[in-house]
Amino acid sequence: MTSAELNEHDVDLFTSTALAHLATLMPDGSPQITRGWVDADGEHVLVNTAEGRVKANNIARDPRVALSVVDSQNPWRYALVRGDIVERRHEGARDHIDKMAKKYRGLDKYPSRAPGEQRIVVKIRPERVHDRAR
Amino acid sequence: MTSAELNEHDVDLFTSTALAHLATLMPDGSPQITRGWVDADGEHVLVNTAEGRVKANNIARDPRVALSVVDSQNPWRYALVRGDIVERRHEGARDHIDKMAKKYRGLDKYPSRAPGEQRIVVKIRPERVHDRAR
Repeated sequence: MTSAELNEHDVDLFTSTALAHLATLMPDGSPQITRGWVDADGEHVLVNTAEGRVKANNIARDPRVALSVVDSQNPWRYALVRGDIVERRHEGARDHIDKMAKKYRGLDKYPSRAPGEQRIVVKIRPERVHDRAR
Repeated sequence: MTSAELNEHDVDLFTSTALAHLATLMPDGSPQITRGWVDADGEHVLVNTAEGRVKANNIARDPRVALSVVDSQNPWRYALVRGDIVERRHEGARDHIDKMAKKYRGLDKYPSRAPGEQRIVVKIRPERVHDRAR
């Protein structure tokens, strides 16, 4: 199915423990890809990163991203999203990474925080969603 | 580890049954991401697609791609590649997709061939490899 909105099956997938792949654009316009944790608020896809990372620098320069989540148990259950970063938020970003650590690793606190690290919650507005997520 | 070449651990991963994520560039320069089968010849990463697909059109226009493979059993075993398409080959592409069907699904023939479909083997030269693949 192709749409511009997340449906309940996409949100189920994005709030599961499946990893996401996020594609961003390097300064020369070439694609970069990273894997990591993902979340959704119902309408947006949420990713948590930290200031200074390549990915964070890329999206501060160009908000266009693509993201994929595939069910780790069933490769035919997936969602592919193209969209734009509509918010980069520091407020609540530490609580949010702790929430992600709980979801993915069962930990109360994110264990890999670096001294002085400033976390960012990145909000992605889907422009196009292709899924087979139910 | 970051390098510009695949090592034996990357090749092991790329020739396993782990799925790949491939990021390409849309006509407007925004990133697109798809998941699919992957292979390696030792030096290059190989992807098999078909003429007419968004991904195939994208790489014919702009050869810059990024690709990620994560071990389905161990999310800490992965390889991230940025590079360029250095070859798009029709010759042998049907045999190669059959080989992929064997690897991923245990089938002698690729089961989803469309009438008139022209397969392409895409050869990616790694410009940058970041891995934790052993």
